[in-house]
Amino acid sequence: MKGFKLSSREYQENDTQINIDTYAKKLSIGQGQCTIIAGPCAVEDRDGYLKIASFLKSAGAHALRGGLFKPRTSPYSFKGLGRAGLDIMLEARQLTGLPLVTEIMDVRDLDFLYDNIDILQVGSRNMQNYSLLEELSKLDKPILLKRGLSATIEEWLLAAEYILAGGNKQVILCERGIRTFEPYMRNTVDIAAVALVKQLSHLPVIVDPSHATGHWKMVAPVARAAIAAGADGVMVEVHQDPDKALSDGKQSLTPESFSAMYQQLMEIAALNKTRID
Amino acid sequence: MKGFKLSSREYQENDTQINIDTYAKKLSIGQGQCTIIAGPCAVEDRDGYLKIASFLKSAGAHALRGGLFKPRTSPYSFKGLGRAGLDIMLEARQLTGLPLVTEIMDVRDLDFLYDNIDILQVGSRNMQNYSLLEELSKLDKPILLKRGLSATIEEWLLAAEYILAGGNKQVILCERGIRTFEPYMRNTVDIAAVALVKQLSHLPVIVDPSHATGHWKMVAPVARAAIAAGADGVMVEVHQDPDKALSDGKQSLTPESFSAMYQQLMEIAALNKTRID
Amino acid sequence: MKGFKLSSREYQENDTQINIDTYAKKLSIGQGQCTIIAGPCAVEDRDGYLKIASFLKSAGAHALRGGLFKPRTSPYSFKGLGRAGLDIMLEARQLTGLPLVTEIMDVRDLDFLYDNIDILQVGSRNMQNYSLLEELSKLDKPILLKRGLSATIEEWLLAAEYILAGGNKQVILCERGIRTFEPYMRNTVDIAAVALVKQLSHLPVIVDPSHATGHWKMVAPVARAAIAAGADGVMVEVHQDPDKALSDGKQSLTPESFSAMYQQLMEIAALNKTRID
Amino acid sequence: MKGFKLSSREYQENDTQINIDTYAKKLSIGQGQCTIIAGPCAVEDRDGYLKIASFLKSAGAHALRGGLFKPRTSPYSFKGLGRAGLDIMLEARQLTGLPLVTEIMDVRDLDFLYDNIDILQVGSRNMQNYSLLEELSKLDKPILLKRGLSATIEEWLLAAEYILAGGNKQVILCERGIRTFEPYMRNTVDIAAVALVKQLSHLPVIVDPSHATGHWKMVAPVARAAIAAGADGVMVEVHQDPDKALSDGKQSLTPESFSAMYQQLMEIAALNKTRID
Repeated sequence: MKGFKLSSREYQENDTQINIDTYAKKLSIGQGQCTIIAGPCAVEDRDGYLKIASFLKSAGAHALRGGLFKPRTSPYSFKGLGRAGLDIMLEARQLTGLPLVTEIMDVRDLDFLYDNIDILQVGSRNMQNYSLLEELSKLDKPILLKRGLSATIEEWLLAAEYILAGGNKQVILCERGIRTFEPYMRNTVDIAAVALVKQLSHLPVIVDPSHATGHWKMVAPVARAAIAAGADGVMVEVHQDPDKALSDGKQSLTPESFSAMYQQLMEIAALNKTRID
Repeated sequence: MKGFKLSSREYQENDTQINIDTYAKKLSIGQGQCTIIAGPCAVEDRDGYLKIASFLKSAGAHALRGGLFKPRTSPYSFKGLGRAGLDIMLEARQLTGLPLVTEIMDVRDLDFLYDNIDILQVGSRNMQNYSLLEELSKLDKPILLKRGLSATIEEWLLAAEYILAGGNKQVILCERGIRTFEPYMRNTVDIAAVALVKQLSHLPVIVDPSHATGHWKMVAPVARAAIAAGADGVMVEVHQDPDKALSDGKQSLTPESFSAMYQQLMEIAALNKTRID
Repeated sequence: MKGFKLSSREYQENDTQINIDTYAKKLSIGQGQCTIIAGPCAVEDRDGYLKIASFLKSAGAHALRGGLFKPRTSPYSFKGLGRAGLDIMLEARQLTGLPLVTEIMDVRDLDFLYDNIDILQVGSRNMQNYSLLEELSKLDKPILLKRGLSATIEEWLLAAEYILAGGNKQVILCERGIRTFEPYMRNTVDIAAVALVKQLSHLPVIVDPSHATGHWKMVAPVARAAIAAGADGVMVEVHQDPDKALSDGKQSLTPESFSAMYQQLMEIAALNKTRID
Repeated sequence: MKGFKLSSREYQENDTQINIDTYAKKLSIGQGQCTIIAGPCAVEDRDGYLKIASFLKSAGAHALRGGLFKPRTSPYSFKGLGRAGLDIMLEARQLTGLPLVTEIMDVRDLDFLYDNIDILQVGSRNMQNYSLLEELSKLDKPILLKRGLSATIEEWLLAAEYILAGGNKQVILCERGIRTFEPYMRNTVDIAAVALVKQLSHLPVIVDPSHATGHWKMVAPVARAAIAAGADGVMVEVHQDPDKALSDGKQSLTPESFSAMYQQLMEIAALNKTRID
């Protein structure tokens, strides 16, 4: 494997740490912190989002996710509230002090999202949307780069390289399952990739067990596995009432199951702290 | 399989035929014609491109391909001449009368390419770049939609549905191999998908054996298979001097091997004409 | 790719031809003949098998397939008639003069099958059953070696190498689709593998479009593609009354659709004869 | 998913526990114990095997693995010592009191291995060798059933069902990676499958990170992930001197790295004990 330079351990031996310090509580990602990003798949309505945001703050989550623009396989599916959802997210941030994560799909949304969002997410379908990556490379803003559905580890690191090469050093990698023949779950979480990328690269790596498995019952075990394998955190979907979610309800944790998982992850993360690799 | 409507045979029983008639020779794609799109991977220099274009015209090719913007896995690879290459393509069109096919990667290039190019190609990495698809859906311009590397047949048809749903009915589907475990060739041509999509949909389907296999020796057999399976044509890479190509030389046919393949494809296509399915 | 020796073109430049001449009509496989092996998935009852065998003889098929022992994913499915089905196959051979093909799953059936069957098939699940391959390598009997569901081309040729290395030079390779993410069809036919193996190896290669696709409507197009790509033949399932088949009815051709396909394949094979690669 | 009955939680709610009590230390697999099976890939020589066995005993391993018959992709590779290696394994058992695990590839080795080995392993290539499964179903002997390279979870459970249906209730499932497009590691560990199978089935599930990844550096992180996801144990390769191993040296742990991993796994297993799912 070759071709990636700025993302490699050869180029930078020590873990990159990404700091977001404009809020009440400073957030650091990388270097062994167990960062938990949580929220509903899409921002759907003000009350629901504020309610789950308050819960997540109290339960210890470190950042809030929420989709404004949802990439949907069918043109006939719910595509998110778009700009109309932003005010809801901003209100949630004011309420909780938690930084915001949302996906950017279109270079034309860049200014608008740059001004308001703390971490910009590149979805798996856009991992090789090089026009988008090149624009993001010019920003001083953390980018959460999801692995493409069928991207090799090398291609994933080379997509990160596009961002780094343009001058933006704040890249967080996110493993979210790869496409395989196995039909039961949505995708196959590549847990060994997490360990491998931590060895090859200094960039923080998190795992999204919700989209990867598509079943809420698999979220906690896979999240535990992620932290045990060395991931720097997880991003999970949580919904007040998963059965009523407009998208991805089946994979959303309830507040109760989130709290149980949170405790488990912190225990495993504590073990990691004492480990010398 | 469900969800696609406008692209289905239920919605439109008869084959879509796409006509491009602004040049010397009218080009029709679909309804049993065997359309052959050919050219080098990227437009590299004026002399080389005009030379191969002249050859392809004389050898019977129906349209000229050429990459201006090349999506490259690594940020450090040759990315095409960009707008500077357009004049070369336009000169080749004037010389040969053949319509031009090139890839669009960025919505911001739309106006520029719309005015000059006859068929806009969406590459496999962008098959689910919905912002791009939605813009293309508003045009009266044929779109060649490549199947994503790991797109199911349903997702591919749903990507086409994005274009059709916006009002653009001129979609040409292009199978270019899917990603599998097999390491010898670049991708695995899904020949049965060609036959299946012809049954499910009224849209024309072509095959790109050059990118799919990555080896020029496999191009002619796979192209023959494509036409025998019912494809409406092929898109192949041809280069005057494959060993000197800046990208994808290994998969380019020489002029001589193109001519041999051309003859084989026309013979199989002639058999298709007499077949009643 | 390396490791296979006896199966390579370097070891033997000319195509292997496998001759079976104990019956009325001598059968040769390889060297450009288009061999068509046909029959129901499993031998189910005497009348049905004899009827379809007679039809296939009259329709031009070159060999009769029929499963005695069916490998089934579930222990609760119909597993074939076993030895009880052999008499039916032998009667069909006497009636038609066509050689018999059946699968061997267990080394303990070797003597029994060796004495009665003309071509022994190794199923995809057993492609790397090395104990079985080693026993088959000691026989003077043609072996039809199906590619494993997830076998690379190299592993497939190395499985053939096991048989060749033991002294049995009569190996016929059979592509039957590989396992991929695509859910619509059972497996993904790797048509380029057919062309590649013909270049790498002197062994005959056939394709089984019935098992590969799992849909009878896809059988004829994929069979045409196979012959156009250079395959030495196809093996297809044909059933008098597919709706009533105990296994794999959905993928069986009717007698009428077999005859239509037969004609198409012979036309493409005739084109192959005149081709100089 | 359906078709498996005896292996389902519906049929038996409580975890199966497999007990092996003929030695100094009684071994129980399932119900939350963290079982660690370790040893070299193949039994190569007496001194080396006894040395590593003594080490593993002292380091806390629960069972000894060692290959007598090695399934090898190429007929020209080292295939194991065969029966000649058994005496070495028996001596190691006498020395350490640890039960023995070895692979069975051929039904004709059954009597010989049944009499001497404590856990019979079915390798991934033979997961659907139904003749073998049916013979094993008649034994009162624990069977370690590896998942096939491209087996779905359902097919894996149905292979277990073959053994259970014949009367042998002692099946241990072993996830060892599935074949995907990712080229860097040998296979892709399906960590979510471990969690899912624990939910669907009462059978114990272990993970083999050595074969799955093919890199010793990935073994400890993946083993930690396995236990965190709920696996009942791991099976790992350990070699005194990995660089000199006749097979799979690259994926073998040294004694030192084994001890470090052992400690980590026990800590995570201790957390599991206190968890209420």
